[in-house]
Amino acid sequence: MKRRGLLIVISGPSGAGKSTICRELLRSYGENLELSVSATTRKPRDGEYEGVNYFFKDIEEFAKMAGNGEFIEYAKVYDNYYGTPRKYVMDKLGEGKSVILEIDVQGGMKVKEAFSEAVFIFIMPPSFEDLRRRIENRGTETEQDICKRMKNAYSEINYATYYDYIVVNNDIKEAAAKISCIITAEKCRYKRCNIEFENFREG
Amino acid sequence: MKRRGLLIVISGPSGAGKSTICRELLRSYGENLELSVSATTRKPRDGEYEGVNYFFKDIEEFAKMAGNGEFIEYAKVYDNYYGTPRKYVMDKLGEGKSVILEIDVQGGMKVKEAFSEAVFIFIMPPSFEDLRRRIENRGTETEQDICKRMKNAYSEINYATYYDYIVVNNDIKEAAAKISCIITAEKCRYKRCNIEFENFREG
Repeated sequence: MKRRGLLIVISGPSGAGKSTICRELLRSYGENLELSVSATTRKPRDGEYEGVNYFFKDIEEFAKMAGNGEFIEYAKVYDNYYGTPRKYVMDKLGEGKSVILEIDVQGGMKVKEAFSEAVFIFIMPPSFEDLRRRIENRGTETEQDICKRMKNAYSEINYATYYDYIVVNNDIKEAAAKISCIITAEKCRYKRCNIEFENFREG
Repeated sequence: MKRRGLLIVISGPSGAGKSTICRELLRSYGENLELSVSATTRKPRDGEYEGVNYFFKDIEEFAKMAGNGEFIEYAKVYDNYYGTPRKYVMDKLGEGKSVILEIDVQGGMKVKEAFSEAVFIFIMPPSFEDLRRRIENRGTETEQDICKRMKNAYSEINYATYYDYIVVNNDIKEAAAKISCIITAEKCRYKRCNIEFENFREG
């Protein structure tokens, strides 16, 4: 029997570097790892492909899927809906792949209710000064926007207590290596391998 | 303030390859890692040095240390006593080094009572057939000894349930790499970094 993969939830305040770390994680440790593909009612942008970046749905399809319990979690962000398709994730886990879910803390809490056996990792910026600098350096934000994002960051960080691991993003490669180690370690946890282990004891 | 190291308890049936894995772990990932040095009433053998292989004590000194609570755990094995000196371990942890304690399951259970925050790793042979082969290949054992060792192995493996992680020794280097990952992951656990993290939140 193929061993199931792990569901890895990665959250953290915007600007902490989640997406960059996830890309590096897949690039350097991508064997048996998949990034979850969300469903969305947002229109595809140039260069976005169905099933690669998103599963594009119209609002009726999305509502029907939500009604049928086909999402592990979903949320409305501004005018669009985003959801994590249960079947896609379960299929990958069944193939023995671990699935990365890059998701906000509210989504993370919903996954925790549905999948308590998932691994919850919170990415922290090295400091608030660093976070502010990163947000400012984007150069696209007004002072008001920056304040709002910083306030959100404070409030998101309060959820870190519900996560199993804290990875501080001092360095992208180092942070990705730590997450890869967390995945390796979690696969060795007694509670995850005791089924195989029972077989061994009887063997 | 320097961050404290982790106490890592490594157990497993004799013949599973614990000592070889620990040597490889120190060789390849030895930075900030120390193997605990036990105290013993056994006489030094050729090539064994005080403070390197053991702290050699006479029976009166050992008994006095035991009486003063200077051991995290101690046990009599055949005619000699062996103990893990609390001060040595605490000093290394205070220096920020993680300390490896290679110890039998009875010792492991005593450490668990005294140091619940330690990390408990159980080394498993790939199979009982493999374990039997390794014990037989030593060539020094009678059939009766082999049976006794195998029986002990069965009984030791029942303790694996009290360990946090199971590392199967299919390959020495792979097993050492997994333990190194477990140490990295454990340092990221929320429960271990929330003190630093509280500072961050106030900062």
